Amino acid sequence: TTDSNSATGAIRLAVIPGDGIGQEVTAEALKVLEVASPAGVKFEQTRYDLGAERYLATGEVLPDSVLGEIREHDAILLGAVGGKPGDPNLPPGILERGLLLRLRFELDHYVNLRPSRIFPGVPGPLADPGEVDFVVVREGTEGPYTGNGGALRVGTPHEIATEVSVNTAFGVERVVRDAFARAQRRPRKKLTLVHKTNVLVNAGAVWWRLFNEVAGEYPEVTTDYMHIDAATIFMTTDPARFDVIVTDNLFGDIITDLAAAITGGIGLAASGNVNPDRTTPSMFEPVHGSAPDIAGQQKADPTAAILSASLLLDHLGYADAAAVIEAAAVEDIAARSGEARRTSEIGDAIAARVSS
Amino acid sequence: TTDSNSATGAIRLAVIPGDGIGQEVTAEALKVLEVASPAGVKFEQTRYDLGAERYLATGEVLPDSVLGEIREHDAILLGAVGGKPGDPNLPPGILERGLLLRLRFELDHYVNLRPSRIFPGVPGPLADPGEVDFVVVREGTEGPYTGNGGALRVGTPHEIATEVSVNTAFGVERVVRDAFARAQRRPRKKLTLVHKTNVLVNAGAVWWRLFNEVAGEYPEVTTDYMHIDAATIFMTTDPARFDVIVTDNLFGDIITDLAAAITGGIGLAASGNVNPDRTTPSMFEPVHGSAPDIAGQQKADPTAAILSASLLLDHLGYADAAAVIEAAAVEDIAARSGEARRTSEIGDAIAARVSS
Ligand SMILES: CC(C)[C@H](C(=O)O)[C@@H](O)C(=O)O
Ligand SMILES: CC(C)[C@H](C(=O)O)[C@@H](O)C(=O)O
Repeated sequence: TTDSNSATGAIRLAVIPGDGIGQEVTAEALKVLEVASPAGVKFEQTRYDLGAERYLATGEVLPDSVLGEIREHDAILLGAVGGKPGDPNLPPGILERGLLLRLRFELDHYVNLRPSRIFPGVPGPLADPGEVDFVVVREGTEGPYTGNGGALRVGTPHEIATEVSVNTAFGVERVVRDAFARAQRRPRKKLTLVHKTNVLVNAGAVWWRLFNEVAGEYPEVTTDYMHIDAATIFMTTDPARFDVIVTDNLFGDIITDLAAAITGGIGLAASGNVNPDRTTPSMFEPVHGSAPDIAGQQKADPTAAILSASLLLDHLGYADAAAVIEAAAVEDIAARSGEARRTSEIGDAIAARVSS
Repeated sequence: TTDSNSATGAIRLAVIPGDGIGQEVTAEALKVLEVASPAGVKFEQTRYDLGAERYLATGEVLPDSVLGEIREHDAILLGAVGGKPGDPNLPPGILERGLLLRLRFELDHYVNLRPSRIFPGVPGPLADPGEVDFVVVREGTEGPYTGNGGALRVGTPHEIATEVSVNTAFGVERVVRDAFARAQRRPRKKLTLVHKTNVLVNAGAVWWRLFNEVAGEYPEVTTDYMHIDAATIFMTTDPARFDVIVTDNLFGDIITDLAAAITGGIGLAASGNVNPDRTTPSMFEPVHGSAPDIAGQQKADPTAAILSASLLLDHLGYADAAAVIEAAAVEDIAARSGEARRTSEIGDAIAARVSS
């Protein structure tokens, strides 16, 4: 591969470390990005102090002006957002809906890309997982995540609360196309649709129809279908069977955490919130949360954040530099002895492998 | 325990074997029920040939008159429903929504009870699961399963399809109360709420509020909360931590299949669709589906159906007879050598242990 973008001189990076361990892991991802930087490329970073701290101090979640500034960047590197669970000053969803999901929706990140591999040397919960290497293409702008819904008679015995999953042909087709294109580029060329078409019959029908329509254009791609409940079974009993999975926003949220668990933990799971049309900056973040319980203690594993930085470079066209980071992380993972290292030690070790 | 109901002379049982392996496993469950029958108790069975075959032959799914007859029974034993995946004459959801879910909804089975144990001797996918023994109380009459939703411009590029999750204080409170009462009766007295309150903020708020309100009445029960995505992680990395889980209809569907997978497979997972108010017959069924690919070959494991029959007896007040079936199944499971037995051989073996 040649880096298609290597002529450009600067990458404008919006950095949102966020809350808890988000701060620590982002620092390591940036450290590794700097040393991996392709010749002649400079990172111009703008840091945004968005997250629980700012909200609790100012009531601000994501001011429109900040969103406007973020739009002017080439990509976003995000750590994690979320405060202490149960904090009465921070109702659930304020940051998730107001910051993280708002970024995904406003920037039209319709491909939420989550690769899963069992890296050599990584212990996991499964006795005999086989060779696991798949990628989940999670829809990122529709489904039950739209914030469509409401509540009546709140706080009374007559409360009724709704959540509406919204699914459009436009939204489903574009993510299904992306998934087929990815499957076509991979050696096994297999695509699995995960949904719950036997219960969610309206949403299921539009996913089913477009999946089958687009399949006609990819005769080399083998397809199959699994209900989300059955998919959790195969994910633990035969994860090696998966190549590319395409699924809706909520099912994708669930199945990718499970995928992270069976491949050795959320400390290794990277993700990209991608707008394949490149009309807005895409955003890269570890799948894990802000883990307030271990924040500030240099206990977090920054590998997922570092692998997310690799996805970022790949998305921007620097495939070689991305591969160097990934290889360095994989080498470091393989060399782990089980001894606990500090967050910064892991970052240093991967950075050293990148430079060597 | 003394069987509270042992004076009554007859149990009116509606039997719906359904499709595929549903037929075979139900036969074994009935075989075991007959021999386990408490002294002086007779089963009066009515069989209903509902399922794919009847639908394909007549277009009927669940005629009102049949539903009316079923209501007159003390309990329902169900095998599995569902035809061949992708059968163009059997659109997804016809049987699931029209038969299985209609029974659950019309008979107000608001407690969908799914116990999970790792039985001695059962191999599973996890290297080191620990002692696993928990029960999921899945809400059965609300959430994204209500069939509320629709579609516009179907089949066009402008299609929009919605699915509405409906959550009421009434519906949430009653299932939460049931879960607390169950947790209170168990040695560990622990209850975990599983939801996605940080994204589904309206539904999440009513679950969160009522969970905490009812918790005040159960000071001995320890509570915690987990997002559904995080719950899938703990289910594979530390399933022994769970005691009772209470969750919504869709999350419960997903987490119980995962629970079945990690405890050694869907062939062992029993369930009850329970109306604790006893105003309608409750329904007992294995968690697995109709598995058309192995139907009619005597390859299915009837243990889940047999354990569901045990739950049925327990629900009707025959705790001793229920315990005898469960013990016989557990003994049989422990004695399994990995050699394949026919469906009827497993049923015979468990029945023999019950009578001995
Ligand atoms: C924090 C939360 C809103 C988010 C999601 O549900 O998408 C997270 O779980 C993820 O998977 O990125
Ligand atoms: C068949 C289907 C409708 C059903 C459900 O989703 O509830 C099944 O998966 C189950 O868990 O009992």
